[in-house]
Amino acid sequence: MRGKTMGDALDMVRNEDGIAAVLGVLEQQFGEACHTGQAVRAQHGHTTTWIPTQAPDAVIFAKSTEEVAAIVKICATHKVPVIAYGTGTSLEGHVNAPVGGVCIDMSEMNKILAVHDQDLDCVVQPGVTREQLNLHLRDQGLFFPIDPGANASLGGMASTRASGTNAVRYGTMKDNVLALEVVLPSGEVIRTASRAKKSSAGYDLTRLMIGAEGTLGIITEITLKLQGIPEAMSSARCSFASVDAACQAVMATIQYGIPVARIELLDAMSVKAANAYSKLDLPETPLLLLEFHGSESGVAEQAEVFGAIAEDAGGTGFVWTTKPEDRTKLWQARHDMYWASLQLRPGAKGVSTDVCVPISRLAECVAAASEKAAELGLLAPVVGHVGDGNFHTLPLIDMENAEEVAKAEGFVSWLNDLAISMGGTCTGEHGIGQGKKPYLRKELGGAVDVMAAVKAAIDPDGIMNPGKIL
Amino acid sequence: MRGKTMGDALDMVRNEDGIAAVLGVLEQQFGEACHTGQAVRAQHGHTTTWIPTQAPDAVIFAKSTEEVAAIVKICATHKVPVIAYGTGTSLEGHVNAPVGGVCIDMSEMNKILAVHDQDLDCVVQPGVTREQLNLHLRDQGLFFPIDPGANASLGGMASTRASGTNAVRYGTMKDNVLALEVVLPSGEVIRTASRAKKSSAGYDLTRLMIGAEGTLGIITEITLKLQGIPEAMSSARCSFASVDAACQAVMATIQYGIPVARIELLDAMSVKAANAYSKLDLPETPLLLLEFHGSESGVAEQAEVFGAIAEDAGGTGFVWTTKPEDRTKLWQARHDMYWASLQLRPGAKGVSTDVCVPISRLAECVAAASEKAAELGLLAPVVGHVGDGNFHTLPLIDMENAEEVAKAEGFVSWLNDLAISMGGTCTGEHGIGQGKKPYLRKELGGAVDVMAAVKAAIDPDGIMNPGKIL
Repeated sequence: MRGKTMGDALDMVRNEDGIAAVLGVLEQQFGEACHTGQAVRAQHGHTTTWIPTQAPDAVIFAKSTEEVAAIVKICATHKVPVIAYGTGTSLEGHVNAPVGGVCIDMSEMNKILAVHDQDLDCVVQPGVTREQLNLHLRDQGLFFPIDPGANASLGGMASTRASGTNAVRYGTMKDNVLALEVVLPSGEVIRTASRAKKSSAGYDLTRLMIGAEGTLGIITEITLKLQGIPEAMSSARCSFASVDAACQAVMATIQYGIPVARIELLDAMSVKAANAYSKLDLPETPLLLLEFHGSESGVAEQAEVFGAIAEDAGGTGFVWTTKPEDRTKLWQARHDMYWASLQLRPGAKGVSTDVCVPISRLAECVAAASEKAAELGLLAPVVGHVGDGNFHTLPLIDMENAEEVAKAEGFVSWLNDLAISMGGTCTGEHGIGQGKKPYLRKELGGAVDVMAAVKAAIDPDGIMNPGKIL
Repeated sequence: MRGKTMGDALDMVRNEDGIAAVLGVLEQQFGEACHTGQAVRAQHGHTTTWIPTQAPDAVIFAKSTEEVAAIVKICATHKVPVIAYGTGTSLEGHVNAPVGGVCIDMSEMNKILAVHDQDLDCVVQPGVTREQLNLHLRDQGLFFPIDPGANASLGGMASTRASGTNAVRYGTMKDNVLALEVVLPSGEVIRTASRAKKSSAGYDLTRLMIGAEGTLGIITEITLKLQGIPEAMSSARCSFASVDAACQAVMATIQYGIPVARIELLDAMSVKAANAYSKLDLPETPLLLLEFHGSESGVAEQAEVFGAIAEDAGGTGFVWTTKPEDRTKLWQARHDMYWASLQLRPGAKGVSTDVCVPISRLAECVAAASEKAAELGLLAPVVGHVGDGNFHTLPLIDMENAEEVAKAEGFVSWLNDLAISMGGTCTGEHGIGQGKKPYLRKELGGAVDVMAAVKAAIDPDGIMNPGKIL
């Protein structure tokens, strides 16, 4: 049971001989498609985050499952790390190569292989992005609901168990994948499940691979559930005097059972950032943004019931609309919040937090986070997928200032501990990667040993994305 | 990677010395609470199924997680099997003890530990049954939606990844469990997750344990998602000239996006059985039974839209009602179908099938199954959770007639192969147990080796519910 914790930074060393041997074979087999230039390598360790880049030794843009399997087999022979790369939008150093190895860039495996409109599912390669898929589906009246903001690849989204603004209604990647094709660390290829909507056929390997961050295998094909585009969609917004009042409205909305498609919180600092970046003139107090999906009469009913709830919580300026241009403008501003927040302090890096707590503790947790940030002198706007109890603070840090960096690290650690003490998690949707490794055992204790045992069983040489999660 | 398939019937032998040693320790430690009498033992291998009973050597009614851990530790020391028992309503021999061992009956661990009404979740012991939970929740306006028909224990439902009539709207057990406490094969106790609504914190051990049928550990506490009782519920029924026409209506309903809470098919033979057993006078042609949850206006709208779809598919006798007594009568008849079907041939045993296929293949699959049964001279009524593409046939067999038994086995095998060839599964909700082991590799190929590797990593001595799944 007590598997050795894989990829612990202390016992990780570069396998120089193995890497040299693998590069030799790959260059022979893939020629110019095996990139070893500094620029391409650096780009593939780089992500939209504060975590420093650790570049791989080579990058190959895979074209097929067979190519992925061939690369993995070569790496397995020489016990060299393999790291899958989607679009590089992860936030916890997931694609870094702390001891080098081969990066497999999946972006050219971007075919939509089948859309089964009668079954409301589709089969895609992992490099397909969510926007690409939704563009393809639109004419058929279908859509894929998971929306983490960034135009991420579906393989990456599955690997980090991504979710985002629509999760309150449609769930996360774990709820929207029917089956996977996976290249195992041995180079063998498996299918985790059939295309049936539900199954009790043995261990749920689909869910085991979702959120495994590429540490158990590389996803090479994904069967996704789809949704019919709703007959009607409406958006609403409402301002509140305090984060607490906004959270009370959220809690009442969820308890009432309004099937909101999205319910997002922006604190006053985030609204200010959005006004400046997206040229809006929203009142600079805490704001809820909502979206409703349903029939024409259904979305009207939902908006009205929410309006009454918001009023009870002291909300002001409640407006709702079904006009596509108004809806798009607001949601684009929400999606641009990361970039808008960075503009609050040009040149700073954002250190994103990602706690998720039971909704009854949400108001208290958000308030405590903002107070703590202020106490530390950190500029830390808050946005949240509050229907799920998940919110992000983004302390804006001058990475050259050691004292500030230490303060930010202390803040992140304090907030993760607080969320865990409230029965929550240190990561609602970003994953563990490198950045959250210290918190996993605090949160889950001995369960981490079970994860390590599973890792050792499936990847005994620890070649798959080493140094992540465990 | 190539773990030995655990619990293969050929290499399983009784560990006589270990069992004797364990019985000695347990009798000393638990006194009269350690039952070794023939009647109690036989009862704990028995289930509502055709699979012959294989009794354990002893049965202990556990009172706490600590007791479960203590029993498992004793069994681990002597490498003796441990089998968890809920209510014995499984259908694939899940609680059998093919090489003996100790059965832990969880029925006295039946406390509802906490209901967090603001968070829409609760924490229960595994022996709590779904009816017990719903009775407890009713006054708070909450309910737990998963309904497999039988009044099963929630631990058993989690272990077999159960679902049933409400899954089309609310998902299966995999979608409705937030976290588990599990006693591992070593006797260690872990928690798989926090109470947060969503999480990306490492491997999804919650989903790994759900559907593991007690082969990776014993569930001792469950955190469940709850739903608010809808403002309104309505039921509807509609008769069709053929199964094909009924399935066309189902497919259109799902594609249209009507959020049906239940959509169940009974074929003509099942309707006949229900009329006789439940004293109804339904037209003896294929029937759809539906339930709608929502606001008053929402359920009316849903029923009306379904009515129009049913009419397009040639449906007749469409009626809908919100009267509780009418709703209850119909759904009680649906829940009693297993017993009603057995009355079609008194003295016969039912051999339930459980295939689940993409909904576009459902009509074809059901029709082929009925034709094949008729061709073989088998009486095999059909019921189905058709919104998910899941249906059950129940060949009624004289178990003393070897030729009939062989025909039934041939039929089950043929139907499982057909479902797999259609992109479906041999088990939508009953699990693998002993009965479906031959089909798992046909369905999932090399993925079964990954399951075996995970099993060997977590339960190296193979003591947890041996001879099931793998």
